[in-house]
Amino acid sequence: MNILNKNDIQKFFSIADCIPIVEEAFQYYYEGKVDVPLRTQITTGTGKGTFLCMPAYSEEYDASCVKVLNMFPENINQGLPSINAQILVMNTKTGGFEALLDGNYVTQLRTGAATGVAIKHLARKDAKIGALIGTGGQAQTQLEAMLVAANLSEIRVSDLNFERAQQFVEKMTAELQTTVMIKAVENSDLAIEHADIIVTVTPSTVPVFDGEKVKKGALVSGVGSYQPHLQEIPASLVKKADKIFFDSEEAVLSESGDLLIPLKEGTITEEAFTGDIGAVIKGELIGRENDEEIIFFKTVGIAAQDLFTAQAISQRMKKS
Amino acid sequence: MNILNKNDIQKFFSIADCIPIVEEAFQYYYEGKVDVPLRTQITTGTGKGTFLCMPAYSEEYDASCVKVLNMFPENINQGLPSINAQILVMNTKTGGFEALLDGNYVTQLRTGAATGVAIKHLARKDAKIGALIGTGGQAQTQLEAMLVAANLSEIRVSDLNFERAQQFVEKMTAELQTTVMIKAVENSDLAIEHADIIVTVTPSTVPVFDGEKVKKGALVSGVGSYQPHLQEIPASLVKKADKIFFDSEEAVLSESGDLLIPLKEGTITEEAFTGDIGAVIKGELIGRENDEEIIFFKTVGIAAQDLFTAQAISQRMKKS
Repeated sequence: MNILNKNDIQKFFSIADCIPIVEEAFQYYYEGKVDVPLRTQITTGTGKGTFLCMPAYSEEYDASCVKVLNMFPENINQGLPSINAQILVMNTKTGGFEALLDGNYVTQLRTGAATGVAIKHLARKDAKIGALIGTGGQAQTQLEAMLVAANLSEIRVSDLNFERAQQFVEKMTAELQTTVMIKAVENSDLAIEHADIIVTVTPSTVPVFDGEKVKKGALVSGVGSYQPHLQEIPASLVKKADKIFFDSEEAVLSESGDLLIPLKEGTITEEAFTGDIGAVIKGELIGRENDEEIIFFKTVGIAAQDLFTAQAISQRMKKS
Repeated sequence: MNILNKNDIQKFFSIADCIPIVEEAFQYYYEGKVDVPLRTQITTGTGKGTFLCMPAYSEEYDASCVKVLNMFPENINQGLPSINAQILVMNTKTGGFEALLDGNYVTQLRTGAATGVAIKHLARKDAKIGALIGTGGQAQTQLEAMLVAANLSEIRVSDLNFERAQQFVEKMTAELQTTVMIKAVENSDLAIEHADIIVTVTPSTVPVFDGEKVKKGALVSGVGSYQPHLQEIPASLVKKADKIFFDSEEAVLSESGDLLIPLKEGTITEEAFTGDIGAVIKGELIGRENDEEIIFFKTVGIAAQDLFTAQAISQRMKKS
C-alpha cells in the first residue's frame, strides 16, 4: 500500500487533473452508478467530536474507497486542524489496499474541482473578472480552479478580516505561477462588482455579499454552507438566479442553509431548482443559454467526488 | 501517523500482551461500554467480493478505530489472501490519526487472545493436553494462546490434510520457543483423546470431531464457525456441555452455525446457554466450578476485541 501525503500527491496530480475527474463523478452520480451506503457517525462522549466513516463504490468506474473524516471544532483552541481525514483506496477485484491518501487534501482538490466543473459548464465563456470570498482552508483550490477553468484577467479576494485576505493573496501570488492579477479588496461588495464568476467559501451564518449587486451573466458557486444553519448566499440572489444547479439536489436539500433557509422563509420554492450538474454534463439539461443569465451552483460535496479523485490519484501514482 | 505491518507489531506486542487486553474488551463489551454502529457492507457488482467498514468507539477505554475488511474468497485461485484488512486508530480527543495497523494480524492476535481468555477463566487449572484442529491462517495465534494461557505438556494438531498438519507443526516448532511437545496427529479423534483443551479453527460445514469422545473436564473453544452454514462443533458436544459461554451471545446467535444449526434442529434450546464470558470476568457469573464440567466457549469475534487491541498496540508503539 502506498501512503501519500499532500506533498506526495502534488508531485503528480493537480487541480487541472482533478476537474475532468470530478466532472465524471458528477455524471456517474447522476446516472446512479455510484454506490454510497449511509455513512456511520459516532459522537464522542463529550459531544465535542464526531467520527464519520464513508465507504463508496462504483462498479462502472471500477473504484472503491473508505473516507474517514473526524470533526473536532474545538481543536482550533489548541492550534490543531479541526478536521482530520484519510482515504483508503481499495482494489475492486481483490479487495487489496492500494493507497492511503491525505483526506484533507483530497477534499480540498475535489471541492475546488467542483467549482471548476461549474465554471466549465455554467460560466460565460468570456468571463474576465473573478471574486473569491473567504480565505480559509478550502480557498486555495477554489482559486486554482478559477485560474484553470476560466480565462480571467483579474481575481478579487475578500475576507471578513482584510489582513487575512492580504496575507492569502501574498501567499497565492508567490505560490501560483500566474499572470492573472490577484488582489485583496476591503469588502465583498468591491469583490463582486462586475464579477463574472463569484465563489464563496466561508463558514458564515449570514449572507456574505449583497445579492442585488451581482451582475447579469454571473455564475455564483456556493461552496461554504454544508449545514442547515450556515448561509453565505443571500436569499435575494437565490431568488434572482435564472437557474439553480447542484452537485446533488438531494444532498444540498438535506444539508445546506443556502437553500433550506430561503425555502423555509418562502423566498423561493423548489420550482426554482433546475437540477443536478450531472444532467448538464450528460446533455440532458442545458447549462448556460445566453450571456445574461445569472446561474447559482450550490455544492456541498458528495462521496462520488472523493471516490473518483482518490481512485484517479491511486491510478496515476502507479503509472508515475 | 504510524504505519505498522505484522513484523512491526511483533517487535513489541505479543499474544501474551493481547490476552489481558481482550479480557478487558469482553468485560467492557458486556458492560455496554463499547459503541459499535451497524457496519456498512458493499458487495461488488460481480457479487464476488465484499467490503466491510466497521467503526468502533469506547469513551471509557478512550479508544476509537475503523476496521476495513474486504472478503474476496476467489482470491485463493490467484494465490492471494482472501481477506485484506486495515485498522485506522484515532485519537478520541482530537480526531487525529494515530496509527494504521495490519488488520489481518490484529485479527489473528485478538482471535487467539479470545481463546486465551477462555482458557484463563474456563479451563481446568491442571490442563495438560491440548488439541488444535485446523491449521489455516488463524491457527498460529490459537496455538500461541494455548501455550501462554495454560501449562500444557503436549499439544496435538490435526487437519483434514495430515501433511498440512505436519508442515504446520514443523513451522511452529521452529518458530516458537517452547518445551511443550507439539505433534501432528492423523485425525481429530486422536487429537482430542484425553485432551483438556480443544480448539477448533476450521471453515468446516460438518463437525470436525466426535463429541462423544470429549473427556469430562474439557474446555472446547470453537473459533472457526462465523457464518450460519459453518458447523465445526458436533451438536452432541453442544448438548453434552455443562456450560456454554460466548464472546457475545447476540453476535454468536446471529452468525454461527455451531449454535444456530442445533437450535434449529431442536438438539438444544437457548436454556442451555450460560452467558457472555464478560459476565464471568466481571464476577457476575461463575466460570468453571469443578474438574468434571465440560465447557463450550463459542467466539465469532466482536469489534471490541479489534478496538481494544488496536488501541493497545498504538499506545505501546508510542512508548517504545
